[in-house]
Amino acid sequence: MRTMQSFAARLALAYAASGSLVCVGLDPDPARLPADLAKQPEPLLLLNRRVVDATADLTAAYKPQVAFYSSIGAEAQLEASIRYIRERAPHALVILDAKRNDIGNTAEAYAREAFERYGADAVTINPYMGEDSVLPFLARPDRGAILLCRTSNPGARDFQDLPIEGKPLYRHVADRAATRWNQNNNLMLVVGATAPQEMAALRAAHPDLPFLVPGIGAQGGELDATLQAGLNAQRTGLLVNSSRGIMYAGSGAPNQIRAAAQSLHSAINAKRAAFR
Amino acid sequence: MRTMQSFAARLALAYAASGSLVCVGLDPDPARLPADLAKQPEPLLLLNRRVVDATADLTAAYKPQVAFYSSIGAEAQLEASIRYIRERAPHALVILDAKRNDIGNTAEAYAREAFERYGADAVTINPYMGEDSVLPFLARPDRGAILLCRTSNPGARDFQDLPIEGKPLYRHVADRAATRWNQNNNLMLVVGATAPQEMAALRAAHPDLPFLVPGIGAQGGELDATLQAGLNAQRTGLLVNSSRGIMYAGSGAPNQIRAAAQSLHSAINAKRAAFR
Repeated sequence: MRTMQSFAARLALAYAASGSLVCVGLDPDPARLPADLAKQPEPLLLLNRRVVDATADLTAAYKPQVAFYSSIGAEAQLEASIRYIRERAPHALVILDAKRNDIGNTAEAYAREAFERYGADAVTINPYMGEDSVLPFLARPDRGAILLCRTSNPGARDFQDLPIEGKPLYRHVADRAATRWNQNNNLMLVVGATAPQEMAALRAAHPDLPFLVPGIGAQGGELDATLQAGLNAQRTGLLVNSSRGIMYAGSGAPNQIRAAAQSLHSAINAKRAAFR
Repeated sequence: MRTMQSFAARLALAYAASGSLVCVGLDPDPARLPADLAKQPEPLLLLNRRVVDATADLTAAYKPQVAFYSSIGAEAQLEASIRYIRERAPHALVILDAKRNDIGNTAEAYAREAFERYGADAVTINPYMGEDSVLPFLARPDRGAILLCRTSNPGARDFQDLPIEGKPLYRHVADRAATRWNQNNNLMLVVGATAPQEMAALRAAHPDLPFLVPGIGAQGGELDATLQAGLNAQRTGLLVNSSRGIMYAGSGAPNQIRAAAQSLHSAINAKRAAFR
């Protein structure tokens, strides 16, 4: 049994035990499975096991994206994958990437989905519906919520960057969340690697908030600029996610998956060592 | 087999065949099941069948809320409930209330979840991540996407009402969606009944966009003000949702469920008849 530990302590343990800021996304696209797994009965689980086996010592967190399971009714493989992570990489955080959002009693149901059904340590959520749609995900001090703030995709510019009284919307989201909703110190922000200037502004305003960073690799985010913008004074404060870049590295063989994770891990830690 | 029909035609058929603007929310809270169903093996499905049986002729649409199923691993009961709606109320739209949102390839997976796995006619989505997170849900002309715009909950004020160049954010969302993303004429907006002035402004700006309207009943929305604000020139253009007010009417007996739906249906149609 896992002990009742605050989310902040859990995150600190994940950093310390792995020595890593890497988060590995588990996005097993059913249309893009390695040939040797595609015909197996539980191919998503098998691919996830392969990735976890190859990366367990290099990884602070795993982030399964729910859509790739729910689109084909494979929730049982998601549950089994999370159980496997707990066995094989007990130090690692499990982040359910679900981007949930809804009003009070429905948000409570989604929080139960993430934290009870799947046993995740944290879940990604969306701020558009405001406070009563966010607080149910922050109610448990031992679990975290990771709020979309400035995302990594091109569409982030459509609304997140709109200026409101001199500040873009995403800054309003961050400020409101940090000052009003983070009573349990279990809030993180999603800040994309494709927007290092925006990340730097957020880091300056919120020195202690941890960021989940998508957008390295396939989406074009620059690692060095990301670390320069986002590391905190302790040289942590970031979980740098890579999904396709690790899961589908090379031909998808275990040694190629490991090499991709090792490469990201080493590049980050070299930069951290030089960071001032 | 259902024929390939545009979403707009499908919506028009649902209105015409039912003579109703009522949408019944299927939010079977596992903690709040009628006593005679709570111990049965598939209580969510049984409750939904009871509601559908009692309301099929009064209803233009059914809207199951995914969270109440996914929180307890009851996706199979959601699938079976949708199949039951198709048998019992073939005219009715099925709206998957999921508030999905994510970047391109993940949004495509969520669209497959809604339209292929569950066979829904439409799915609710969130605008925060912008264009590339929205378009995958609008790609099929025979299926619709219902974009959160001005929601019914108190937290709607936190970000949706923030003023940007003289217009609140939710108006920017509606305008962008209507002018840039609705090429297939399969877009609806979520506009809450708790904000009739905002709804009237949206109706004036977008005379032809259909609105899904939550917030009548438990959340305090006024029906008359909603209809005055939101009906279009054809006296349709709205799907007025009630979830708890119908599903948990009285003691939850079938005749009480039907009476609640009949009451809402009649009140709406009396107002429509007098609308000018």
